[in-house]
Formats: sequence, C-alpha cells, structure tokens
Amino acid sequence: MKSFDKKYRKYRTILDLKLTQSIRKSEPVSLYDPMKYVLSASGKRVRPLLILLACEAVGGTMNQALNAAVAIEVLHNFTLVHDDIMDHAPSRRGRATVHVRWDANTAILVGDELVALAYRELLRTKSRAIAQVADVFTEGVVEVCEGQSFDKEFESLNDVSLNDYLLMISKKTGKLFSVSSEIGALIGGGTEREIQALRAYGKSIGRAFQIQDDLLDIVADEKEFGKKIGGDILEGKKTFLLIQAYERATGKDKRQLRTIFDKRGITSKHIPKVKEIYERLGVIETAKQWIEKDIKQANLQLLKLRDTQTRGMLYWYSDMVLNRQF
Amino acid sequence: MKSFDKKYRKYRTILDLKLTQSIRKSEPVSLYDPMKYVLSASGKRVRPLLILLACEAVGGTMNQALNAAVAIEVLHNFTLVHDDIMDHAPSRRGRATVHVRWDANTAILVGDELVALAYRELLRTKSRAIAQVADVFTEGVVEVCEGQSFDKEFESLNDVSLNDYLLMISKKTGKLFSVSSEIGALIGGGTEREIQALRAYGKSIGRAFQIQDDLLDIVADEKEFGKKIGGDILEGKKTFLLIQAYERATGKDKRQLRTIFDKRGITSKHIPKVKEIYERLGVIETAKQWIEKDIKQANLQLLKLRDTQTRGMLYWYSDMVLNRQF
Repeated sequence: MKSFDKKYRKYRTILDLKLTQSIRKSEPVSLYDPMKYVLSASGKRVRPLLILLACEAVGGTMNQALNAAVAIEVLHNFTLVHDDIMDHAPSRRGRATVHVRWDANTAILVGDELVALAYRELLRTKSRAIAQVADVFTEGVVEVCEGQSFDKEFESLNDVSLNDYLLMISKKTGKLFSVSSEIGALIGGGTEREIQALRAYGKSIGRAFQIQDDLLDIVADEKEFGKKIGGDILEGKKTFLLIQAYERATGKDKRQLRTIFDKRGITSKHIPKVKEIYERLGVIETAKQWIEKDIKQANLQLLKLRDTQTRGMLYWYSDMVLNRQF
Repeated sequence: MKSFDKKYRKYRTILDLKLTQSIRKSEPVSLYDPMKYVLSASGKRVRPLLILLACEAVGGTMNQALNAAVAIEVLHNFTLVHDDIMDHAPSRRGRATVHVRWDANTAILVGDELVALAYRELLRTKSRAIAQVADVFTEGVVEVCEGQSFDKEFESLNDVSLNDYLLMISKKTGKLFSVSSEIGALIGGGTEREIQALRAYGKSIGRAFQIQDDLLDIVADEKEFGKKIGGDILEGKKTFLLIQAYERATGKDKRQLRTIFDKRGITSKHIPKVKEIYERLGVIETAKQWIEKDIKQANLQLLKLRDTQTRGMLYWYSDMVLNRQF
C-alpha cells in the first residue's frame, strides 16, 4: 500500500506540473490569469490517475497516456467552473470560485477555453487509437452536459425518483470516470475484453464517487472538503440522501424535507436539522452500503485484467474512492 | 452570378437540414429544446459555405467537407449563445436569445454542448488530414475565446488603439473564417500553396466581415439585421467606428463619444446622435474603404488557385460579404 501511495503522489506531481505547463500564454490577462488560477488549484486528480493506471494495466506506459490524462483533468475543471456559476457555489478547493473572484462572464469564457485546451492536449496523444479516443472523449463532453442539465432540471421538479437520480449521476459524474478508464485502455492497446472491463470499472467507480460526494456534502469537514457544507441542500439538489430520506419520511420529517424539495426558505441554519433527519432515517448508512456495493462491482471487473502491479493499484484506487474524506 | 446564387441556396438548404439532423435526442428537454431552437434559426451559413467552397476549389467534393462544414456552423452558434449572455443581447436572428427566452444557466449549458456537438460532427470527417483538421479547429476555438476576452476587456478600457482592435477581431471573427477556408482546403487535399492562399483569403474576408458587422450595427435595418441596432454603442464596444471617430473628434463630439467609452448613461435615444457624429467625421466612409481594401486583398489570394468555377464562386462570395445588409 505504501508504494501505491508513493506512486500516486509521484503521478500527481507530474500531473500538477503538466497542468500548469498547459498554459503558456498570458494575454488576454482577463482570460489567462483565471485559467492559471483554476489549473493551479490542488486537486485529487482522480480522473487523470485512472487514465494512467488503465493504460498501464493493459500493458501501456504512463507517458503514452499523459496528454490524455491532462486533457481529462482540464475538461473536469471546465465542468467545475461552469457548474459553480450555475450552482452559485462560493468556494471550491478551499478558494473562491472564478465567478466570485472575477465575474460570471469571465467564468463562462474560462470554461469555454478550458474545453479547447482539453482537446488540444488530447490531440497531442500519439496513438493508433486516437480517432476512437477523440470519439469517446467527445461523448464524454456530451453526457456531462446532459447530466448537468438533468441536475438543474431536477432542482425544480418535485418528484425525482431514484432511477432518475441514477441516470443523472451516471452522466454527470460516472461518464468521465468510464471515459477515463476506457481512454487509458485504448491508448495502452488493450484487448476488447480489457477495454470493456475497464470501462465498466470506471462506471461503477464513478457512481460510488458521486454518492460519496452527496454524502460528504453533509458529513465532511468543511476545511478538508474545500466546499461549503450543505451546499446541495441550499441549492435544492436532488441527492441520493434527499431522495431516499423523502421516501422513508413521514409526518413532520416529510414536511421538513419538502421545504428542501421546494427550495422554500432553506438557510444554512437548517442544515444540522436535515443531517439529523438523514441520520435518524438511516439514509447515511444506506449511502455507505451503496458505495461499498459499487466498489465491489468495480473490483469484480478487475478480475478480467492481467495480474499486474498496476491491477493491484487499481484495487488501491477503489479503496481510495471508498474512503475519501474530501 | 445567377448560378452562384442558386448554388448558395442549394448548399444552404443542405446545411440547414444537416444542422437540424445533428440533434437526435430530446432529453433532457431543458437542454435539447433550446439547442434545437438555436440550430433551427435561419443564418447566412457563410462559414460552412466557405469550407465547402475551399474544399471544391482545390479539387475536393462538397460531400467530403460536409461534416466539417456543419461543425463550424455549430461552433459558431456556440460563440453566439455565450457571447449573447455576456453582451446582454436581447435578440439574435430576429428572435429572443437563449438566455432571455430561457435563462443564463440554460444558455451556458447549451453553448457547452454545442462545442461537443461541433467536435462530434468534425470527427465524422473521413480524411487523411483529419488530425490536422482537428488541430486547426481546436486553435480556432482557442482564439475565438481569446478574441471574446479582449472584446470584453476593451469595454472597460479607455484607450484602445486601432491595432488592439484589429488583433481582437482577427481572433474573435477572422479566425473562424481562416479556419474554415484552411479546413476546406485540407479536406479537399490542396497543395501547401493552395492551403496557404485559402487561409489568407479567409483571414482577409473575416476582417472585412467584422468591420461590416460594426457598420451594420449602426446603419442596418433592424428587421433585416435581426439584432438590435446600436447594441455595440449601448455595451460600450470598442468598434472600428468608435475608435476612428474618437481619434478624429474634438470638443463637444469628443465629450459625447467619451460617454460611450465610459459607458456613462448611454441609452438608445443617444444612438441617432452618435450616428450623426460618425457620418460627419467620415468614419462610416472610412469603414467602407477598409472593407473594400480587405476584399481586394482576399481576392488577390484567389489568383494562386486553379481557374475553376468554384474559384469564380469565391469571388462571388467576396462580393456577398462586401454587400451584405444583414
């Protein structure tokens, strides 16, 4: 495990460096200053790490997949910058969001150019599978936008089922994970079976990751999390917890949760109360069970891969998603 | 000339059809309804037409370049949707803009997905030069974002030189024209000399097109133009006309123009006065001269191409840009 931690830190350092190097221009400053700000923020780099590991797991090298890894992280940052505008998020990764520190127009443009930058990095990939890689990447962008649209739609709907929710997160979050593992496998020259297994692995990991995210919104330590606690509740987000709790609640609890659904005067002082309801109805426990189940599903896919050290690290990667506190 | 008009109408019909066909999904409706709204708006389709003509001019066929042509129009529509948010534009192509008819969040997402859709179409191109085509396209997206950033920066600067302006429009507008002609030439299998000539042609055409756009903002017929007349003045845009007029103006005129620079309480009732100043100082005449000069420059490049019917149509295309009223 220690050696996996070490390898993760090493890869993260390489990725951080590549990310800052991906912008060489400085003008217009109103564009490149905030772009540098975004890409210099510390991040877990879980998606690019997945690309690198998937590539290695099928016999490729880290270097082959490095441009694609940078591309996926840049793309992910695009979604953060634009989503934060739409969700009125004040902070991200422990710092003010772009639309707060600058303004919404700047944040729109920064996001737009991040997409272009992501493609530029991706297209630097030297691989026989580049056409397929670009297709998979593009479908990723499409589905991420669809997922965010569903998410925003759901905010003003008052009956969102668990299935609706699962479809939404499979697009909004799951897709970039499955895109990452698939692209890594494609660049590494994996077999059809390996590519399929890694795609499925990424999909399950992505779902676990999002349910964990919903959970952390209410149970995390704000400083470590880097985002405002309870932000989902204030925005009326239809999270795993809210949907499950609403189904189980009765009487006063139900009325209380209803005010979140309807976004009626919920303020941060209601968050502890909501947390208490979630705990009492056992939905925090249920979320944890779902995450564990998804991680198990993901790990089953790894059995289809060759038994290598990198496969070992993918099990470690699954654990990391399962246990993350931020 | 009549046959060129006819061919233009034919190509526009094909492009309009392909544009509406590029969206097959309907959910999430909050995303796909406004996307269909955007792509069903009538447009001049000048950029995709340029791709098709450039491809034919070097010996390729219209069909080879059709996906790329659709891609560039979709990309252009992305810039319109996002720019309209930033510029508070109420109407476009004679209809309410997306952020007005829906809201800003919707318009952000619609623009984002249009980028993905543009890449999807582009990547369907069957061409040996596809890697180069994708690179040129991506640099186009980068520069369009840079151009828009400069444009927004300039709004709050009070000394913007003509050179600053020319750099800005070369990115914001010129680039997509040179990208179009270059991509067409690449797909058509043009020689290095032909590709270079067509790129330069597109660049000059793009500049003429933007100066014409600045001009139309004040002299066009609102209904035909499809946009609010004087929008640039109300937004404090540093247009060709304003920069030139400010340089020439003295006394009261200068003070009046200063209020536009500073965005101090300019309302639509001031627009006729500004137009009168522009006319009196001769900058409308100067703009027309610049456009003619750029068109001449563009046409000089066409001499490097084979003498075909399509080359004839490119001259016709230059004239269309020169004489457009909308």
